[in-house]
This record gives sequence, structure tokens and C-alpha cells, in this order.
Amino acid sequence: MSEAAYVAVDWGTSSFRLWLAERTGRILAERRSQEGMMMVERLGGFAAVLQSHLDVIGAPADSPVVVCGMAGARQGWTEAGYLETPASLSSILERAVAVPHAARDIRILPGIAQRHPNRPDVMRGEETQLLGAFGLGETVNAIVCMPGTHSKWVRLRDGKVEGFATFMTGELFSVISRETILSYAVAGADDAEDVDAFRAAVSEACASPALATNLLFHVRSGQLLYGGEASAALARISGTLIGLELAGGLLNAAPGDDVTLIASGRLQALYQSAFDRLSIPIRLIDADEVVFQGLSVAAKAIWPEGDAS
Amino acid sequence: MSEAAYVAVDWGTSSFRLWLAERTGRILAERRSQEGMMMVERLGGFAAVLQSHLDVIGAPADSPVVVCGMAGARQGWTEAGYLETPASLSSILERAVAVPHAARDIRILPGIAQRHPNRPDVMRGEETQLLGAFGLGETVNAIVCMPGTHSKWVRLRDGKVEGFATFMTGELFSVISRETILSYAVAGADDAEDVDAFRAAVSEACASPALATNLLFHVRSGQLLYGGEASAALARISGTLIGLELAGGLLNAAPGDDVTLIASGRLQALYQSAFDRLSIPIRLIDADEVVFQGLSVAAKAIWPEGDAS
Repeated sequence: MSEAAYVAVDWGTSSFRLWLAERTGRILAERRSQEGMMMVERLGGFAAVLQSHLDVIGAPADSPVVVCGMAGARQGWTEAGYLETPASLSSILERAVAVPHAARDIRILPGIAQRHPNRPDVMRGEETQLLGAFGLGETVNAIVCMPGTHSKWVRLRDGKVEGFATFMTGELFSVISRETILSYAVAGADDAEDVDAFRAAVSEACASPALATNLLFHVRSGQLLYGGEASAALARISGTLIGLELAGGLLNAAPGDDVTLIASGRLQALYQSAFDRLSIPIRLIDADEVVFQGLSVAAKAIWPEGDAS
Repeated sequence: MSEAAYVAVDWGTSSFRLWLAERTGRILAERRSQEGMMMVERLGGFAAVLQSHLDVIGAPADSPVVVCGMAGARQGWTEAGYLETPASLSSILERAVAVPHAARDIRILPGIAQRHPNRPDVMRGEETQLLGAFGLGETVNAIVCMPGTHSKWVRLRDGKVEGFATFMTGELFSVISRETILSYAVAGADDAEDVDAFRAAVSEACASPALATNLLFHVRSGQLLYGGEASAALARISGTLIGLELAGGLLNAAPGDDVTLIASGRLQALYQSAFDRLSIPIRLIDADEVVFQGLSVAAKAIWPEGDAS
């Protein structure tokens, strides 16, 4: 017989995911919505949005809830602060913050900050993916690429987040393809991806990152002089920005370092293709699964068996 | 006694400038407006807009008109095509195209295209600035930086445009500071420029172009972790993009090459400061003056003295 043990929530800027799980980690129910932090205020606040989902899935009134992501930001629900690099993955759950005056036990996981004057950086949510991907192990060594709106490149040494860097790849792709002169070149692009154009652009940008904004302009001037499809233009913009990111992310990889790619869906395919083009072997982990796994690791540590009310 | 000899027009995407000049080059009248190519259709077309300005300044009915810029694009007034690199500066005026069925003699100067499959590029307007800056001389050798919405870096060898590259610096600065998460960091920035923040960002981006989009994110994360002024954030975005451009533009400079900066106003000050930060000596030419000078060189060659009707 199934018994709900905890609720896990990944609460981002523009998305919301929730799972109800048994202690074994078996998922009993799952919810996904667009009720991210930016939308929550209009919807009655964090507590109301969470409760509406708990009601739908019939979560027991005493199930505790563990949350990661922007809900812990200053402008979120309850500020969960930042761990400081170097940060052990195990310290993530040790520093979970309880939401005060809540109807049940709700803990929000902290983010990680790199307080270095020349390399200031922050993450919130990705640390939980790392926990899910690598567990609490103290022997993990890896360079981890986590692509997205703001891609993170993380250096793990002996189970600690030693340092990391954020690249604005996804957000730049969005504004450059929609809001610049290149929008004319990509107008009407369909979903058919031009793999060759993408891979050529990755290779060029990674080889000559200083030419990045010149390579972007080629998308327009190449079409003016030689014609070409909108889908190839879109693939070139994507490839240029991902190639630029890889050139930067790999700066911190020592020769022989394993690169782990944590991604899912379309981004997974694109980054796999990009690493392949550069002949860089990777270990692949599905991003869709590791958030829940990280939240589960936290839940089991925060509420040990037998300790449940 | 003054005698109007020709009219010169710089007709860009979003701006219009016109001069009435004597054969000596002395300017008799000048007009500036926002009636660029994008606005012309609404205003009755190119001929009507030009005539309205000629009427205001009382240009003689037989004054010929020489035009450079986007008026010569396919979507402009009369297509003036492209010269091909390597293109001698003197060929610009040899390939001027007459506007058909016009009420007076109107010639539009061609742009320059670099038909190289891996480095396709186009310019339209900048070639006339080069003509103004360097004349018809066949001995000119220079690396020329022409900053703007789409900055051009031009390699001149023996009076020929041997090759060039466009960097989307200005346009990217605009969309990144207005349309991305960095817009929060620069909100309320006043006009007071933070020169130190700008120069530091130039230096970092030029030294590590692969980190460009990471350095951009620092604008946000630095403010989250350490605070800081909006004006410093804006200066960092500008410095990062200009530093990235300089790293790319200088790739084609041989050691000992002179760099010539053709710029005016605020961009001139920024790029001067950036080159200075990198200890790169430059020769400075005022962009505001060279367009008219280039158009004058063309006018005098197209309509030699004594040949006027």
C-alpha cells in the first residue's frame, strides 16, 4: 500500500513543478504549471498556489514539503540565502530554511553564491539538480554543464562546488533572434533544425570567440549575399552562442576532466551535438529527473525515517 | 559670391543629412532629420523627401545630388549594388548609379560586399566615410575601426578595401540593456558615465572574449552580491561588448599596423578610452566630417569643373 511521505517542489521564475512521493522515492502524483514566481502574486501568493496543487492531488495534511528554486530568493516566498563556494552538496540540506507560520512543515533549500569580486555569481535551483545527479558523495570530481536561459558551468571537486560561471546563452538567443536585425533572417523559420549549420557555427564560435558578434552578423549578410533558409539562420545564431559558451565553459576544465551534461529535451540534443562537434566526450544526465532526485535526497535527510510525525 | 555646385546626402536607415556646397567644398546650407529609409515611405517616398529639403534651402534647380547609404539598398530608392572586395576607394565614384526619371541629376554611391562564403559581409555608407577620410590615394594602409550600431573594422591596403568585418556591438548593447535580466541592473542609470567600470570591463572582455556572456551576467550577479550603481552596470555592459569587439577587430591587425578610429561624439570618447585602456595608439578622424568629405570627393569627380550644365 502506498503511503505519501513528502512533497517536492521546484519553483522557478516562470515554472512550477510538484511531486508527491513515497519514502522509497516512488512518485505518487505530479503537477506542472506556469505558476512561477513572476506569476504568483497575481494568484494569491505562494501559500495559496501550493495549497491549490496539494488539494488537487489529495496530499495528506501532514506531508512535509521541500522546495528549491526562486521561491527562496529575496523577492520570493521566504529568503533561503546562499551557501558560499566552496560549498559541499551536503550543506544544501543542512541550510534549508523553514517557512514561518505555514500550515505544514515547509523547507526551502538555499542557493549557492560565489562571492569573488571579479567572478560574482549565483545559482538557485541548479544546486538541487547537482544534489540529485551526484548525491552526497564526497568524492565527486566533474565539470558540469547545465544549459538553459542562464547556463551554469560548475566545477565539482571532492563533492564540493568549487566554483561556477553563468553564461546568458538562452536569454541572448531569445532577444537576438527576436529583437535585432537578425529577426529578418530567421522570420518564418520552422522547427526543422539545420544540424549542419548549427554544428558549423558551434565550431567557428568556439575556435574564434572574439568574433562572436561578427559571426552573428554573418547570419544576416550571408543571407543577403547568398540567400539561405530561415531555419539555417536560426541554427547559426544558436550554434554561435552555444559555441561561445563552450569556449568559455571549457576554459576551466583541466585536460582529462570529465564533462557532465545535465539537460533534457531540445537543449540536450543541441548541446550533445555541440560537444560531439568539438570531439569532447560527455557523460549525460537527464535534467528532468535530477531535480526530483535532489529534492528527495533533501527530504530524506531533513525528515529521517521514524522521525515523521 | 557663393555659387552652389552640388548637393550631398547621407541617407541611412534611420537618419537623413543633406549639405549644399560650393565647388570649393564650402558648406552653404545643412539639414539633418530622422527621415531615414524606414520612414520615407510614409512621407511620400525618397524623391518627395529630398525635394522638401532642397526647397527649404533654396537649392538651384540644376544642382546635381550625390547620395550614399541605404537609399542605394535593394529596398531603398534605386539599387546601387555593391563593389566587391578588394575594392579601390576610387571605384566607389566610378560605380555611382543615376536615379532614373529624376527631375535633376541624382547619383547614388554603391556599397561594398565581401563575397567570401565564410566571411560574408556588407557595408553601405561607411565606404563613403573611408573615401572622405583617405581620399583617392593609392598608398593608404590602415586598420580602420568605425563604431556604431553595426561597427565596421576595415583593412585598407594600397588604397583598397581588402576586407572588413561587422560587429553587432551597438545593437547588442541596446537589446541587452533593455530586454534582458540586465535591464534590472541598469534601471535608472543616469548619463554620468562610470569610466573605471567601463575600462575594467573592456580589459576583461578583450583578455577573455570566450567569457563574454559570463562577464555580462556579472553585471547582475555583482549587483546582487555587492550592490553597486546602475550607471556602473550600464558602463560594464558597454565595456564588455566593446572589449569583445576590439579583441575580434584586432585579430586582423598585423603588429605595427596603425589603427584609425573614425567616430564622433559619445562613441568617439568611449572607443578612445577603450583603445587607451588596451595601450593601443590610434589615429582619430571625426566621423561627422568625413561623410560630407567623401560625398564631396565623389561629386567633384562625377561632375568635373567646366562640365556643369
